[in-house]
Amino acid sequence: MTPYAAPLDDMRLALDLAGLPDLAALPRFADATPDLIAAVLEEAGKFGAGVLAPLNAPGDHEGCRLDPDGTVRVPEGAVEAYAQFVEAGWTSLPFDPDYGGQGLPGVVGVAVTEIWQAANMAWALCPLLTTGTIEALSVHGTDEQKALYLPKLISGEWAGTMNLTESQAGSDLAALHCKAEPAPDLGEGLYRITGQKVFITHGDHEMAANICHMVLARLPDAPPGVKGISLFLVPKLLVEPDGTLGARNDVKAVSLEHKLGIHGSPTCLMAYGDEGGAIGTLVGAPHQGLACMFTMMNNARLNVGLQGVGIAERAYQQAAAFARDRIQGVDVANPKAGRVAIVRHPDIRRMLMTMRAKTEAARALTYYAAAQMDVAKADPDPAQQAKARRRQDLLVPVVKAWGSEIGFEVADLGIQIHGGTGYIEETGAAQHMRDARIARIYEGTNGIQAMDLVGRKVLRDQGAAVRELLEDMRATHAALVDAPVGLAAMAPHYGTALDDLEAATDWLLAHDGPVEAQAAATPYTLLFGVATGGWQMMRAALEVRRRLDAGDGNPAVLQAKLATAHFYADALMPATGAHRLAVTAGSDSLMAMADDWF
Amino acid sequence: MTPYAAPLDDMRLALDLAGLPDLAALPRFADATPDLIAAVLEEAGKFGAGVLAPLNAPGDHEGCRLDPDGTVRVPEGAVEAYAQFVEAGWTSLPFDPDYGGQGLPGVVGVAVTEIWQAANMAWALCPLLTTGTIEALSVHGTDEQKALYLPKLISGEWAGTMNLTESQAGSDLAALHCKAEPAPDLGEGLYRITGQKVFITHGDHEMAANICHMVLARLPDAPPGVKGISLFLVPKLLVEPDGTLGARNDVKAVSLEHKLGIHGSPTCLMAYGDEGGAIGTLVGAPHQGLACMFTMMNNARLNVGLQGVGIAERAYQQAAAFARDRIQGVDVANPKAGRVAIVRHPDIRRMLMTMRAKTEAARALTYYAAAQMDVAKADPDPAQQAKARRRQDLLVPVVKAWGSEIGFEVADLGIQIHGGTGYIEETGAAQHMRDARIARIYEGTNGIQAMDLVGRKVLRDQGAAVRELLEDMRATHAALVDAPVGLAAMAPHYGTALDDLEAATDWLLAHDGPVEAQAAATPYTLLFGVATGGWQMMRAALEVRRRLDAGDGNPAVLQAKLATAHFYADALMPATGAHRLAVTAGSDSLMAMADDWF
Repeated sequence: MTPYAAPLDDMRLALDLAGLPDLAALPRFADATPDLIAAVLEEAGKFGAGVLAPLNAPGDHEGCRLDPDGTVRVPEGAVEAYAQFVEAGWTSLPFDPDYGGQGLPGVVGVAVTEIWQAANMAWALCPLLTTGTIEALSVHGTDEQKALYLPKLISGEWAGTMNLTESQAGSDLAALHCKAEPAPDLGEGLYRITGQKVFITHGDHEMAANICHMVLARLPDAPPGVKGISLFLVPKLLVEPDGTLGARNDVKAVSLEHKLGIHGSPTCLMAYGDEGGAIGTLVGAPHQGLACMFTMMNNARLNVGLQGVGIAERAYQQAAAFARDRIQGVDVANPKAGRVAIVRHPDIRRMLMTMRAKTEAARALTYYAAAQMDVAKADPDPAQQAKARRRQDLLVPVVKAWGSEIGFEVADLGIQIHGGTGYIEETGAAQHMRDARIARIYEGTNGIQAMDLVGRKVLRDQGAAVRELLEDMRATHAALVDAPVGLAAMAPHYGTALDDLEAATDWLLAHDGPVEAQAAATPYTLLFGVATGGWQMMRAALEVRRRLDAGDGNPAVLQAKLATAHFYADALMPATGAHRLAVTAGSDSLMAMADDWF
Repeated sequence: MTPYAAPLDDMRLALDLAGLPDLAALPRFADATPDLIAAVLEEAGKFGAGVLAPLNAPGDHEGCRLDPDGTVRVPEGAVEAYAQFVEAGWTSLPFDPDYGGQGLPGVVGVAVTEIWQAANMAWALCPLLTTGTIEALSVHGTDEQKALYLPKLISGEWAGTMNLTESQAGSDLAALHCKAEPAPDLGEGLYRITGQKVFITHGDHEMAANICHMVLARLPDAPPGVKGISLFLVPKLLVEPDGTLGARNDVKAVSLEHKLGIHGSPTCLMAYGDEGGAIGTLVGAPHQGLACMFTMMNNARLNVGLQGVGIAERAYQQAAAFARDRIQGVDVANPKAGRVAIVRHPDIRRMLMTMRAKTEAARALTYYAAAQMDVAKADPDPAQQAKARRRQDLLVPVVKAWGSEIGFEVADLGIQIHGGTGYIEETGAAQHMRDARIARIYEGTNGIQAMDLVGRKVLRDQGAAVRELLEDMRATHAALVDAPVGLAAMAPHYGTALDDLEAATDWLLAHDGPVEAQAAATPYTLLFGVATGGWQMMRAALEVRRRLDAGDGNPAVLQAKLATAHFYADALMPATGAHRLAVTAGSDSLMAMADDWF
């Protein structure tokens, strides 16, 4: 199997284009010097490649198990790797220094997280969920909760989980049954939680000393539906007021799922209160759990898109190495020269270029969206903060859905490049596809993301945020048109993609009935991804051209980026036309069948 | 898991549109009365649903194993099912009555084969490969070979395999090493075969009494490359001149592959001649093995496209049943009516309609191509035979590539409809995707199919066969334009698809350099699939409209077909535009990167 190497050149370019230099200039991020960030990325690359990546295939093969004594066992090496990870301080990168964080921009944390996901997605889900827990507690926790939990979560000593789904309540959280009852007998502000949660990622394990479960449940006086859901923090081991660990709480993993992929990550059926009630504390206001969870989910959704980027990168590297090595057939441009590596064959190259271009576009878009989150928090100008918040809200569902689609698609192409060998599990190409598959489902299926984009992010403000974005995208188009002839050749393709996005948006605004909106949601989201990913590729091409002209950087790396951007424009951007037509086709033929004709 | 039911209504419609009534009217197929065919399909549906489908998930779970004594064990129930299959006469359907076949049109055999593939693809690979062996022997075998082997293969008593691939020779058969040396010491016309073959599907098993391996190898005087490859028939057990089974031949499975899917099918590393040489006989002329193999492959390629159809149908049925049952969320068109099954949600419907429309289009195209094979053999008019042969040659790579892409894509959507449950192996949705994945790789990867289409089927005759096809496709367009307003609404979408196919073909003919041709091959093939599959959907819509007007048939079934055709036109046909642009973008950006930049 090909060793993984963090794609530091492209990551640094994406960070630059996302605006990290401007962020780093803010007083809040004074520590984020270019040297420090370079060192962080370099070290993360080493940790990912050296510690996490080698555990990826063995972890897939071994899987997790639930011992008869109720202990969840993760694959060999995972516990030790986690200890090294915590020891090296990787968990604390972007968090509040008041609670032990390193206070770096979130986008740096995102870049580093890409490395963990690429190296070992199943393992890296554990710190990913902890990140979401930290976000939710940081925003919605009481001072006491923050003081008690944040330092341990930020240090990585403790881990976090998200407990939303119940068997009858997947996409439909309104159908939640889990209960929370005030337990003044146990102490002030305590609740007894009872019920079952399914598909809980890293619901139990022995990597961290404690696990903080963020659990959605209903209070006795809860109104029905989503307006009656509250968020609770339920630790695996009770935490004494002085922070020491107490007794085992009444929560346990009762079974593990047998899944298509991410075998190294225990997916648990969790039972709360089998022996009377798990003890928890309320996070945020009563009945406001969904809003609190959304804080966590916004972050988690971006990170799931990022998983797509990571897996895509890993799959690309493996396929490219295979294509450079595998001798098969002759060079069609020069058949007499004898047999060549398959990287010379145009059809293999189409797959490799597609993998590369999509991965880079999704990376750039994800980093850009992550940097907008930083701007929204840290920019001294409230107007810039607000604009960044609008931009981030708009892009998060796109990053999640499009990034995870790309992770899967690229991993799938990786199998194809390997030919018959790709279908053999030992090759490892298939694992990437199996692992990547879940990202299109969890943290809200991609259909849910699409409805979020259309309903909450486009229609609710009547297209204002999209228009604001389109304005920025059109500025890049104008720059392309004015660019030297090589770059300008991409302008028509890119311009068409912008027109398609605008036309599809206009259509949505003019046909905002709920059925039409939901019918259009998926093709609109894919169109949005291709166009905004293309925007990032065009921005990169302009910047790379400038660097080439200035003699700034490795020419081969810069030329490769230009070639990839051209391919994106030529071969991938045209997808927007088909998506636009699927949007504007409306819902008539989609809804024509009677339910029982299916 | 949802029980599988053969989609007899749509199969019958596809058979009608493929021209089965005309075929059945030929003297050669006098036995193929409508009643007989109806009974065959009905019974096949029962066998598939009752015997094969229940073994599908357990077979995936159990897998195959190689016992220490060298015996390959298939999953429990597979041997018994095979015996019942042979007993019922299913293997002999389309074959020559002179050798015990039932002499039915090949397209009927194809329809029935769809059922086996849908019910249990891993198991059904065994008779599928036997079919290819029968085809090759029927065309290229000596009278003696035919007399000795065909009756047992046609009865299913013996099975067949295809042995092409070696570890250094996958897509590149010119690199084959396996050797065949004349062995006059053993008998006239006998050869000793030595070497290894990899990825041999059903390379060994205990289902049939004997296995006839069709093996590509080089004779001592063979010229290098593909012009020095010969085809040999190497039986697992030697066959005495009177047809009785003799000693074990020197061929064995030395290991089994651990694969992403089709776990119920043993994929073997085969060793020939470990003890001196496996004994075989030459099939066809020396050094003409590739041509002989292509006879077998043409049939096998169509059948692999058919596997895509079968898996797609199975995945669709499972997803549709889940969507009708799973209560989640409210009806967006009527939120106050309470919670509904997810089949009401537009985004779920988009997936279901996509699954359904693609499956039906691929089925119709596959049956159509299969019927062209029958016409090419049986039509009394040599001109019609020749036209059908051109048509079949043109469509086989499209059926293989596009059908297998659809099998995978539809199975993937099936997972998505299940949400989190889809990722759990016990649900069975993931197995369909894992199984379907191989069809895009074997029998020539889809990239190889695309190059076959562009190089041999489009450029070689300078577009003559495509133009002939486009003429027929345009006639359907004219009929649509003249049709009542409901149908005519599809004409513009379909017309655009035809224009795209024509323009892409023209571009290929004008840019026929080998690099451009190979660079364009994959998007051209996908465009070809969408357009010709769309053609079949439009033909079906016209026929169904006629039946509705005539009160001929179940109105719900017919209306569902119309709705599906409309959806295909609205939502799926527009993909041709993006594929056309990818074709006409040429190879510049595709080939721009230096090999070592990847």
